[in-house]
Amino acid sequence: MKKAIAVLGGPTENWPPNLKEKLVKAKNSGIMIASSDRGSLFLLELGIIPDLAMGDFDSLRDFELGQIEKSVADIRYAPPAKDETDSELLLLTLFEDYQIEQVDLYGATGGRLDHFFVNIFTFLNPPLAKYNDRIRIIDQQNLILFLKPRMNSLFPILSYSYLGLANLTPVKNLNIIGAKYPLKSFNTTVPHMFSSNEFIGQNKIEVSFDKGEVIAIYSCDKDRFSNIAK
Amino acid sequence: MKKAIAVLGGPTENWPPNLKEKLVKAKNSGIMIASSDRGSLFLLELGIIPDLAMGDFDSLRDFELGQIEKSVADIRYAPPAKDETDSELLLLTLFEDYQIEQVDLYGATGGRLDHFFVNIFTFLNPPLAKYNDRIRIIDQQNLILFLKPRMNSLFPILSYSYLGLANLTPVKNLNIIGAKYPLKSFNTTVPHMFSSNEFIGQNKIEVSFDKGEVIAIYSCDKDRFSNIAK
Repeated sequence: MKKAIAVLGGPTENWPPNLKEKLVKAKNSGIMIASSDRGSLFLLELGIIPDLAMGDFDSLRDFELGQIEKSVADIRYAPPAKDETDSELLLLTLFEDYQIEQVDLYGATGGRLDHFFVNIFTFLNPPLAKYNDRIRIIDQQNLILFLKPRMNSLFPILSYSYLGLANLTPVKNLNIIGAKYPLKSFNTTVPHMFSSNEFIGQNKIEVSFDKGEVIAIYSCDKDRFSNIAK
Repeated sequence: MKKAIAVLGGPTENWPPNLKEKLVKAKNSGIMIASSDRGSLFLLELGIIPDLAMGDFDSLRDFELGQIEKSVADIRYAPPAKDETDSELLLLTLFEDYQIEQVDLYGATGGRLDHFFVNIFTFLNPPLAKYNDRIRIIDQQNLILFLKPRMNSLFPILSYSYLGLANLTPVKNLNIIGAKYPLKSFNTTVPHMFSSNEFIGQNKIEVSFDKGEVIAIYSCDKDRFSNIAK
């Protein structure tokens, strides 16, 4: 599977503590690294050169932009006035030009909540909606997946204690099977979050629905995550 | 107008830097202070006694629970197994038992995103939906309002540079009038966020729609907010 890591401009305090390590490992194993907005700057500060950078690079100082232009293989200068955000263009480039099949997305949460909602809702709207099953949005305490209608099998992920499920649009016949708190044939026209569900041992949880947009949120309490990250 | 401040259990790093000051001022001017979950503990740590506390108080040590029981005027012990969250019960108590007309809600963002979505979506569902125009969700960089169908007049708020507008359900005939980026007769069945809009000087922005759930997010960049808070 062709994988990439993408770093957006959200606050670095929301990054998982092991992100630098993960980026170095990715770089060494040929996994593509991409960035937009201030994400490019954050990578430079870590000493990591992205393979693809998208943006108007407004926030960079001249020598930083110079460094990007000298070292980044693929730089795309997004026009300042456009319909898509830099992040949207970055992801579209990953999916369409590079045929990436799984993107771990960092820097998409925290800070300004209008930015956060853009980063979630962009995956419900064209042109990215059709690729949303290739995305994992990851921050310090959460991992978000977009599910597809019909059947989804979710497996426990180490270091996440909880599984939340939410419909972001009207949903028909939502079922949660095999979880600590099962759900049967739930229908609603209004967004609803089923939080703090749990896996039973190592068993999978199956989530099915006929129609609508549903996300899964793996999450952990902060203390627990800190312990594991040590 | 009868006002209250409610503090939920979300991470205190997301609080605005002036919250303690605001709580002390509220206490002195007779504005009600309420808390749920770890919010009660956070208030105690600031030396502030809430007027109403809701929860199972699991996270408190014995002497802390003792302190709450001795000093808080109205303690409600939420049953551990129930349909509503502690925060939902807290707000319902404020609206129905205390007839509060405006609640500033802190500790509703950050940390676990399943908790965050619960704290947003709870205001789209019964029993709280009918009170959602009395709520302001506030954190370090954001202030969220729930709008009502037909006409809403929004005014600039000092220290927030941007106004974002999002439909959280299908929406009909959404209009944004008087803003830097106006919008006319927008219809969609999918959630969409219009971010980074701006007031023009001190002029109001009018937001109208025929049907659906729309939120407004006042936001600021972190540096700017820090400067103002100094």
